[in-house]
Amino acid sequence: MNTQGDLIILNTRVVTPTGTQAACGDKMKHLTVIDNAVIIITAGRIVYVGSAEDIDLQQTSLNSHTRLDAHGGVSLPGFIDSHTHLIFGGFRPDEFEWRLKGESYMSIMERGGGIQSTVNATRSEHPETLITKSKWFLDRMIEMGVTTVEAKSGYGLDFDSELKMLQVINQLRYSEHRKLDVVSTFLGAHAVSEEFKGRPSEYIDHIIEVMLPAFKDLADNCDIFCEKNVFEIEDSRKLLLAARKLGYKIKLHADEIVTLGGAELAAELGALSADHLLHVSTEGIKQMAEAGVVATLLPLTAFALREPYAPARSFIEAGGAVALATDLNPGSCFSGSIPLTIALACIYMNMSIEETITALTLNGAAAIGQADSKGSLEIGKYGDVAILASDNYHILPYYVGMNCVRTTVHHGRIVAQNP
Amino acid sequence: MNTQGDLIILNTRVVTPTGTQAACGDKMKHLTVIDNAVIIITAGRIVYVGSAEDIDLQQTSLNSHTRLDAHGGVSLPGFIDSHTHLIFGGFRPDEFEWRLKGESYMSIMERGGGIQSTVNATRSEHPETLITKSKWFLDRMIEMGVTTVEAKSGYGLDFDSELKMLQVINQLRYSEHRKLDVVSTFLGAHAVSEEFKGRPSEYIDHIIEVMLPAFKDLADNCDIFCEKNVFEIEDSRKLLLAARKLGYKIKLHADEIVTLGGAELAAELGALSADHLLHVSTEGIKQMAEAGVVATLLPLTAFALREPYAPARSFIEAGGAVALATDLNPGSCFSGSIPLTIALACIYMNMSIEETITALTLNGAAAIGQADSKGSLEIGKYGDVAILASDNYHILPYYVGMNCVRTTVHHGRIVAQNP
Repeated sequence: MNTQGDLIILNTRVVTPTGTQAACGDKMKHLTVIDNAVIIITAGRIVYVGSAEDIDLQQTSLNSHTRLDAHGGVSLPGFIDSHTHLIFGGFRPDEFEWRLKGESYMSIMERGGGIQSTVNATRSEHPETLITKSKWFLDRMIEMGVTTVEAKSGYGLDFDSELKMLQVINQLRYSEHRKLDVVSTFLGAHAVSEEFKGRPSEYIDHIIEVMLPAFKDLADNCDIFCEKNVFEIEDSRKLLLAARKLGYKIKLHADEIVTLGGAELAAELGALSADHLLHVSTEGIKQMAEAGVVATLLPLTAFALREPYAPARSFIEAGGAVALATDLNPGSCFSGSIPLTIALACIYMNMSIEETITALTLNGAAAIGQADSKGSLEIGKYGDVAILASDNYHILPYYVGMNCVRTTVHHGRIVAQNP
Repeated sequence: MNTQGDLIILNTRVVTPTGTQAACGDKMKHLTVIDNAVIIITAGRIVYVGSAEDIDLQQTSLNSHTRLDAHGGVSLPGFIDSHTHLIFGGFRPDEFEWRLKGESYMSIMERGGGIQSTVNATRSEHPETLITKSKWFLDRMIEMGVTTVEAKSGYGLDFDSELKMLQVINQLRYSEHRKLDVVSTFLGAHAVSEEFKGRPSEYIDHIIEVMLPAFKDLADNCDIFCEKNVFEIEDSRKLLLAARKLGYKIKLHADEIVTLGGAELAAELGALSADHLLHVSTEGIKQMAEAGVVATLLPLTAFALREPYAPARSFIEAGGAVALATDLNPGSCFSGSIPLTIALACIYMNMSIEETITALTLNGAAAIGQADSKGSLEIGKYGDVAILASDNYHILPYYVGMNCVRTTVHHGRIVAQNP
């Protein structure tokens, strides 16, 4: 494996959205295709992407670049998984089974399941164990072409445990041999902690006063689970305003279980994204589109919970920007399958494959505020590439649930090579 | 990798159905669990499976056995994918897209798509190319814990091309370094060939007179696409009776698109299995259960086509035996995902994980007539094992769409080792 981030990808077909902000509405389906293409990455950044005929590969400045033959395969921008909860203690497989048998969430909570069981396991877990476990998930993601992943805290719910989670995220982020970018999101307001049971507003105040100022250097974004009977609109607004003031970019879990107005709040506050949105209102869709808030849809969760899928087409038709992410977490959606995400988007959400590619690349980048440097194969952006084992990107939904990525390149380094 | 087929699997939890025929009805959910277990495989066959405490591993007869530490992971019988069309020329990704956009099957056929395009591509493909392509699919299957796969002909539809397909299947089957068992099924009656267009009965007569006798040594089973306007009940009965007389075991694609009575025919003829069954009648379910015909359900196909799933629970409640398989093929279901098959069975077909395991192991073996030698971890059966990366088999549906298999063992040889 090359380590210097100087790479030439030869004999490829480039397929990419373009631009430095989210592609909205009709623009989501516009991909640039360059046949017989070459991508040159120098010191981790793209310095050339275009036809092989227009570039002299013998020039001396390219002498030390590694050369990778894509064998005609499609080069896409590396996938960006902009919504995950990949750091957690324990597992909850038995609870998944109980739920399939029709047991209610409340009954599962009483049996010691639900988010509280993950919080307990995460609080008592050694950071090194959390890191080892997370690295395993990250390696699977890299094999599927993911080059940037967002990771949330939110299974600590007290100062020390949230701090521990954010430190773990940052250790993954800055580890010397990192093979993908990790984006850090503080989600102290994932649920009301046991210590503040029945007093969500007091917990929000505690987060604002104690946690937010202390964690600023450890997190890029602040997120909240805005939902009826958890953190409602007023508490959510209060927290997100405080976070924004401190310099956090803001995101919301919105309108997942009932129509509460989380989408409208995201629009009002100019959040990077509102996520889930299974029960978003028509007005919320419109306001998000107008405000340029990315709608991050998480079809794996709907699939695992047998819920209806979020209205992707309504967002696109309203001129909005849709991103897709996995929502990897130990409860509602223990999966990180990019192939299944693609299949669900194309088969069950009526998104075209072109829109799906944009949603997993440029719009994913926009959902974490990085569309200026990632999400498309253009000069100046990071050399993050997912190279397919086919010259036809329609293979992605067609090869249902199976990985079509042969090679993953991160900042010009080959980080995964599948058979 | 060990090659002699002498292996001791240590430190494992054995989870297996038991018996030498299909598990029916309530019995599908009964798995034997042995904690702190050891499996000893000698010359490819299981000679011991039981508690580590009851066996002396220092005995001299075990000196040359390879030792594999399962690290506490669950050992299941290797998965048996009892229904695939994995040999084919070409690919049809664009057609998949057209169908998602609502284009009719007839319109797709007129644009040169549909099964005829695969028949054309398969007829003109060199056997070595078919073998190379198939081996790639087989390697992916092995990584997912599959140790036996059924492969059908049926994209030739004339003597020479069907012969070529069966020879390819047999070359995969008997290749020196084979890593899984390949079962050969003759499906000349997959569609009416262009040469016999509009004359299905004459094509059936041609198959009976010319192909069936010639292919007997190349195929274990004879299958037919029994469907309205393709091969209806009378033609199907005629072909399958002739095949049975020649010593073929018989199978049917039945009641996939409309309720035609394929299930009843399978019961009448004592077929090994009837497959698909999305539109099976209540009477057909009852008759299949009484006749002991395995219902092979193919949820990936229903998923890819946005069809309702086959009534798995009705079969089980009627006392029938359900098997699950992938239906890997280039048209309706280009996927070989065992993880997604498991997710669909548990989440969308209301099968328990125990029933799902039985369906992919013992009942899959019964669907190809090999339950006497495969499909469970019992003394005398082949040493075919899928070892999970977890001590809890409930991980299988919980880790949605992701591969949980760490090691695949075929006839006592380690054939896949995932990270």
